[in-house]
Amino acid sequence: MQLLKDLLKIQSPSGNELKMRDFLIDYFQKHENLFKTKPVLHYGAEFQNCLAVSFGVPRVAIFAHIDTVAYMTRYKKELIEIGSPTAKNGDILVGKEFGDEFEKLIEVKFIKQKKEDEAAYSYEYDRILHRGTELCYKPNFKEKDGVIQSPYLDNRIGIYCALKAAETLENGMLVFTCWEEHQGGSAAHMARFVHDEFGIKKALISDVTWISDGINLGDGTVISLRDDAIPRRDYVLEIIQIAKKYNLPYQLEVEDSGGSDGNEIQNVPYSIDWCFVGIPCDKMHSSKEKILKSDLETTILLYEKLMQEI
Amino acid sequence: MQLLKDLLKIQSPSGNELKMRDFLIDYFQKHENLFKTKPVLHYGAEFQNCLAVSFGVPRVAIFAHIDTVAYMTRYKKELIEIGSPTAKNGDILVGKEFGDEFEKLIEVKFIKQKKEDEAAYSYEYDRILHRGTELCYKPNFKEKDGVIQSPYLDNRIGIYCALKAAETLENGMLVFTCWEEHQGGSAAHMARFVHDEFGIKKALISDVTWISDGINLGDGTVISLRDDAIPRRDYVLEIIQIAKKYNLPYQLEVEDSGGSDGNEIQNVPYSIDWCFVGIPCDKMHSSKEKILKSDLETTILLYEKLMQEI
Amino acid sequence: MQLLKDLLKIQSPSGNELKMRDFLIDYFQKHENLFKTKPVLHYGAEFQNCLAVSFGVPRVAIFAHIDTVAYMTRYKKELIEIGSPTAKNGDILVGKEFGDEFEKLIEVKFIKQKKEDEAAYSYEYDRILHRGTELCYKPNFKEKDGVIQSPYLDNRIGIYCALKAAETLENGMLVFTCWEEHQGGSAAHMARFVHDEFGIKKALISDVTWISDGINLGDGTVISLRDDAIPRRDYVLEIIQIAKKYNLPYQLEVEDSGGSDGNEIQNVPYSIDWCFVGIPCDKMHSSKEKILKSDLETTILLYEKLMQEI
Repeated sequence: MQLLKDLLKIQSPSGNELKMRDFLIDYFQKHENLFKTKPVLHYGAEFQNCLAVSFGVPRVAIFAHIDTVAYMTRYKKELIEIGSPTAKNGDILVGKEFGDEFEKLIEVKFIKQKKEDEAAYSYEYDRILHRGTELCYKPNFKEKDGVIQSPYLDNRIGIYCALKAAETLENGMLVFTCWEEHQGGSAAHMARFVHDEFGIKKALISDVTWISDGINLGDGTVISLRDDAIPRRDYVLEIIQIAKKYNLPYQLEVEDSGGSDGNEIQNVPYSIDWCFVGIPCDKMHSSKEKILKSDLETTILLYEKLMQEI
Repeated sequence: MQLLKDLLKIQSPSGNELKMRDFLIDYFQKHENLFKTKPVLHYGAEFQNCLAVSFGVPRVAIFAHIDTVAYMTRYKKELIEIGSPTAKNGDILVGKEFGDEFEKLIEVKFIKQKKEDEAAYSYEYDRILHRGTELCYKPNFKEKDGVIQSPYLDNRIGIYCALKAAETLENGMLVFTCWEEHQGGSAAHMARFVHDEFGIKKALISDVTWISDGINLGDGTVISLRDDAIPRRDYVLEIIQIAKKYNLPYQLEVEDSGGSDGNEIQNVPYSIDWCFVGIPCDKMHSSKEKILKSDLETTILLYEKLMQEI
Repeated sequence: MQLLKDLLKIQSPSGNELKMRDFLIDYFQKHENLFKTKPVLHYGAEFQNCLAVSFGVPRVAIFAHIDTVAYMTRYKKELIEIGSPTAKNGDILVGKEFGDEFEKLIEVKFIKQKKEDEAAYSYEYDRILHRGTELCYKPNFKEKDGVIQSPYLDNRIGIYCALKAAETLENGMLVFTCWEEHQGGSAAHMARFVHDEFGIKKALISDVTWISDGINLGDGTVISLRDDAIPRRDYVLEIIQIAKKYNLPYQLEVEDSGGSDGNEIQNVPYSIDWCFVGIPCDKMHSSKEKILKSDLETTILLYEKLMQEI
């Protein structure tokens, strides 16, 4: 779990994910020995803040987004959303003030609108922060009785899951994307990269999803038949068959809202099948996201099998 | 009309169009003699559930989507939409239950929400169907006095029209796309295919469109100056000129809503002109879609001319 | 300012931008001597109504859209929007009637809905105009005390700014795009062109933006940290550093709505950084858009520096 805790300490709101990318580059370089197959890293100007990691001769790519929801200071004491965070009154947000060369970490208290004429979201601090300052939930990791609670399990859990499954990988690709929480903008060009450079036509989306009246904590990996977007049915069936074959616990999602990097891959001008295979999460996008360790563990196992068999 | 009736018997909700694709592959293979020019089929992993058919040296592609609106079972007895179907209370929906290896056809009765706390759409059946079951309108073809009524004229009519116009084709391309009813997802990569492999820069959208206070059954082919999206004016003018030249009846559409594969082609990173050229339809997306045979016949003639002259 | 006045006389609603493209082609051909580096023009079938102009070995592209908001006649006397114009009751709209071979310029008076059962937008004229007629604000240029007022400063100002900055350009690209006001449709393929043909990975968006409680006329160039979309933070910081280095006045925008060609570039399957660098504008999309000449002048200077230093 130390790796997960380390991931959860890093701030990477949509559009500003370099710290997380650099952590991952460093992780792969320092822990090459953890991986059965030597990871080959792809990053730089052609990748913006993204990172791709190939193993052997990849046929399938795991997409895990490395950005998070957050808030940004607008003018005066107004906050606007990066993605769709759902902070509660009094939540502590932290960040470095825009333009502060000393990079001092500042803490503010989140405030929801009380009166009609106020901004929808604001903050308490002894002065107005520079416009454009990004503010994230303050790290607050808790683990007890198989329950993990923390802000930003979305999507540090998806990253963790991909990293762990990659250890046994012979052939495959990890794609760490940006902007997923805020309208996308990188899954498309990363899809082009894996399609054009490696001939990859199949993707798995490693992310978390809402619990609902059909999706529960503890019922295993969520394989999504659809959320807002509808993946190609035959590809999803292939994935379900593999989960069945190995007796790994899974639950089928059928929602008409919500989305993932899958939506962006769906609309690229490349023929790439995708399916959400992820972990159920309570209170998503809040400062108290919650998942079960058991769901995480069996999902890693499922990913290992999927990457062998698809 | 037998071909149209056959098309109308096949279920192919968005994301699960393989049955329709396979019917079309079979049709082209069995009826090669119907076509003046030998059809060349393009399908497989790089095409998902789509099919492209080229004739000679194509300059123009006809796009006809092969998916349909439908419903999908969510949890309990809830139904959610695939695309935007508009079933009425009591409409019969049919489908094979998710995971049923015997593929038994099931019929349920569609129910609209009666009370505030119920799901918006539900069904009557003696038990809860497996989540993820796709349910389509029950086939119900009627033809009388030049009027054709059936569910799924959208877009079996567009497919029929493309197939018929193709019989006299010397140079051209048919593109059968998926997911059109549900946010798209294949017109983009099919556009790339025809652009990159054949240098195609012009598309016609063979589909049906709503009647409105400016569009009537029986007034001929609808050439759309715009719906939600605005095609390049000069390309639409070129098409209108050809309709005029051959004295074929047409009506100009000017709407600010509605869309087609044209919207998806509009936004691909390839320079491809597109124009909707289709058939007016009453009660679109219901179980009782209605068109006039006369509109269909002259539209096929117009397509023949367009494919020669553009 | 004569060039700006000339630009403001041309009608080019989204989808029908050829007149503006042709004006620009003519301008570059007639004024080649104005440019330090010889401009190379790229246009034709592969570019729809767009134009790209390269200088030397370009690393950065300036995107300026050449379409405008407008109205289109629907059926009867109804008007529908092209983009999001905000005409006021009594505004004069002009255009050539659809299909009029004599291309006579017609003037109508814009009317907003008065009664519930009327169309939202209509016009006063002695008869019903042919459906599909495009109607633009009547030209009405005013310049006084450093204030410029006119319809369609959005985006003739952005074009003007790009043309002026190009005069000193050694290496760079201008991209004149279409449909920006109406859901886009060309920035994507122009992005592909500059990326694939010239290896361009950086873009600047030359456009105008709303004044707001944080953005004022006269406070200098607007560099946008975000509007609806969030550009990559590190690229925006690079641009801010250059503005600082040359002591050019700028103001940082932080909005959660509004967009530009940047949104379209954000979602193409190519890794291209973009940033809005433009001019604050009052009453955008109305017949009385207003900017300050001082903002325009320093923005041209900033563009010159950006094109040298990025």
